[in-house]
Amino acid sequence: MSKTPSNPKGTRDFLPSELSKRNYILDILKKNFQLFGFSQIETPALEKNTTLLGKYGSEGDRLIFKILNSGDKVKKADLNALKKNKLLEFTNSISEKGLRYDLTVPLARFVAQHQNDIIFPFKRFQIQNVWRADRPQHGRFQEFTQCDADVIGSNSIIQEIELIKLYDKVFTELGFNDIVFKINHRLILKGLADYIGAENKLNDFISIIDKLDKTRLDLVIKEIKDLIEDVSVSKLKNLLEDKTITIDKLSIFFIDFPEAKKGLNDLSSILEFIYLDNSLNNEIRFDLTLARGINYYTGTIIEVSSKSNSRIGSLGGGGRYDDLTTLFNMKNTSGVGISFGLDRIYLLMEEKNLFPEYLENSFDIIIINFGIKYLKKIFPVIDMFRKNNKKVFVYPDEVKLNKQFSYANKHNASFAIIMGEDEFNKDEILVKNLTEGSQLIYPISKLDSILLGLKRD
Amino acid sequence: MSKTPSNPKGTRDFLPSELSKRNYILDILKKNFQLFGFSQIETPALEKNTTLLGKYGSEGDRLIFKILNSGDKVKKADLNALKKNKLLEFTNSISEKGLRYDLTVPLARFVAQHQNDIIFPFKRFQIQNVWRADRPQHGRFQEFTQCDADVIGSNSIIQEIELIKLYDKVFTELGFNDIVFKINHRLILKGLADYIGAENKLNDFISIIDKLDKTRLDLVIKEIKDLIEDVSVSKLKNLLEDKTITIDKLSIFFIDFPEAKKGLNDLSSILEFIYLDNSLNNEIRFDLTLARGINYYTGTIIEVSSKSNSRIGSLGGGGRYDDLTTLFNMKNTSGVGISFGLDRIYLLMEEKNLFPEYLENSFDIIIINFGIKYLKKIFPVIDMFRKNNKKVFVYPDEVKLNKQFSYANKHNASFAIIMGEDEFNKDEILVKNLTEGSQLIYPISKLDSILLGLKRD
Repeated sequence: MSKTPSNPKGTRDFLPSELSKRNYILDILKKNFQLFGFSQIETPALEKNTTLLGKYGSEGDRLIFKILNSGDKVKKADLNALKKNKLLEFTNSISEKGLRYDLTVPLARFVAQHQNDIIFPFKRFQIQNVWRADRPQHGRFQEFTQCDADVIGSNSIIQEIELIKLYDKVFTELGFNDIVFKINHRLILKGLADYIGAENKLNDFISIIDKLDKTRLDLVIKEIKDLIEDVSVSKLKNLLEDKTITIDKLSIFFIDFPEAKKGLNDLSSILEFIYLDNSLNNEIRFDLTLARGINYYTGTIIEVSSKSNSRIGSLGGGGRYDDLTTLFNMKNTSGVGISFGLDRIYLLMEEKNLFPEYLENSFDIIIINFGIKYLKKIFPVIDMFRKNNKKVFVYPDEVKLNKQFSYANKHNASFAIIMGEDEFNKDEILVKNLTEGSQLIYPISKLDSILLGLKRD
Repeated sequence: MSKTPSNPKGTRDFLPSELSKRNYILDILKKNFQLFGFSQIETPALEKNTTLLGKYGSEGDRLIFKILNSGDKVKKADLNALKKNKLLEFTNSISEKGLRYDLTVPLARFVAQHQNDIIFPFKRFQIQNVWRADRPQHGRFQEFTQCDADVIGSNSIIQEIELIKLYDKVFTELGFNDIVFKINHRLILKGLADYIGAENKLNDFISIIDKLDKTRLDLVIKEIKDLIEDVSVSKLKNLLEDKTITIDKLSIFFIDFPEAKKGLNDLSSILEFIYLDNSLNNEIRFDLTLARGINYYTGTIIEVSSKSNSRIGSLGGGGRYDDLTTLFNMKNTSGVGISFGLDRIYLLMEEKNLFPEYLENSFDIIIINFGIKYLKKIFPVIDMFRKNNKKVFVYPDEVKLNKQFSYANKHNASFAIIMGEDEFNKDEILVKNLTEGSQLIYPISKLDSILLGLKRD
């Protein structure tokens, strides 16, 4: 038995004040996902190891939480594997399931499994926890929430346009006014790789480019030189450090690279649409150095950041992928999706004071308790409050008034309802406005007037 | 790599149509929890084994999903324990964490851990998944959602009264009109046990009584006889089969049992309040045979069922417990709580057709796609729709009209927005009411009229 109980390292308890703010963000996300035609799905936390393993690279495999088989099944433990230090074989002998590592592989599994029940194009959103056996450290958790919206089964750029508009609407509603959307295209990065002769090392090239927002350009260039020997990278360097580079300029550069041209044309159509519509509240910017270090992207890529706080990292990101469901033998299903970084958005909103004050109120009204005899008379009023969507806390014990009012203050209640002997005898209640300190007396039969009285402030 | 991917047995994928109904129930629960002054918390899915084990009996310990330690830590596997078939010792050598088995033990851990940050009485609700390594079978899942509301730190019967009113309000809003709340008190059951000399076998006695809703009385009586030898149970039998038994009658029976009298007095005060208030929509009934087979209850117990479908089992239940946080060395903290059985409520609502039809609509409006040129002109209208909380699906590809309208029908969209060459040239859109089949043409500049047009049906 644990004497000083605690939650495991890398996990979090959410107390009401923090959770109400997280839910404020999530409610805005959900509402807007739905306004943009996305439908919600949920998948189980438990997935088969055959679904999870081999999808995230060897490092990813290592970070998947594995569930121990139950009961007698652990007897099948492969002790030889353990002796030979083949830890993966050993764990596979006693584990068949693991915890969801992200929402993307489960989506691919879901789409492949339910392809006959789904009508394509399939617009789904999903807000669920994922688990990673990362070493716990400041701001990195073993259990956290991902918020994803994806469209499966259409390669129209209308999706990219809508996803940018969705991002813009959400961040505006959350109260941000300093957001920039950076956009690029994997085919353009592929064009750069082709150009320097790294066509067979595309993923490595992209990983190196991905470091550009944290590392100096000359160091990145050095890594590229190390990757491909005997290559002149001066032209690449010029392109990467040219802050005025445009899609038009690059179109000339890539005149003989049809794939890169396709990427440039897509971006150009997307941006033309966005500029014409002129409805974005935030800035969108082509950024040749944006790479997004995730292997499965094949088309447009996008990243969201705050102009006033880039240190915190990206607040969201996404892109188009053409081959995700092929992992589960379902072909020709183009997808595009975005995600929102809940924890970072939360931190930045705290920093910028963007949460509305009312989130601090645990309830609207406290009923001061003078004893059960009085409560019996007040209950019709309480029922009426709740019918009118007022959050009411009935103080359960007949304790000192001080204590009850202090409880109300700590929970930021707006009103207190009081019935002492006097009010009881006259069939009245006293409504005290806790913000202003004013108070008014009502006959308890006048329910409408009492309710109206709560609207004063 | 899995060729025919699937979720693990005993777990579920939720497709949009099912999830929207589940969320409909959960939203009503959340709203009412808040109206009754409860604040939401969340705890991690992962808990330390020291927190989980030894709290649910040996059968419960067996059903806890254990997480394999990551990386090199599995090398510490206790192979001797495995050879000696000491499976629990073996699993303990390679696992430090497990998945939450219910929301009650995590609540006790949470309250003990955060006791200095919590203001008591603490009214919390929690809606999260729990995991049990039960053998998967029809209607029994390894991963499912629990919905609990508890008050910690007050022994006032006002809590019991409020929880009954909360139950009543929720089930009424869900559309039920055939609910019965059965209420009993553990001290009364203890009185019965004392009476027949089973005071040292209280938990066994309660487990046997708990079978009464599934088993015949004479079989239950036989089990009680087996439990305590040399005892006359005829008086007990009379009490248990007396359908007209009242609290008043029992008060006479228990004249020399002060604890049982305390239980009867509590129930009597609760019911007197409820009857006086006369605000319940559903029936409440004292039931001497209600036992609730969970060990930690010490006071009032309550169970919810449907009068028209008792076969489905209880739709919720709860009660008062005085010693829960003592598991974590925090004493004198009385608690009382209720839970809602989401899956059963869902099934019964399906059976009774209680879900509103609008839950079948994935979105309100479909934008028919004639090509990007037309969409560019329609987008201000789309933005306006979304600003007015209309769910809009823009069909992403320029495919045959048939296919687009069929998509709209399958998703129960209410309106289609159409702009062909004619409308494009005249700056107009055609709004088609998909329910009635009627249609109207609007200038795209008249945003207010377009919006008004959507209110016709």
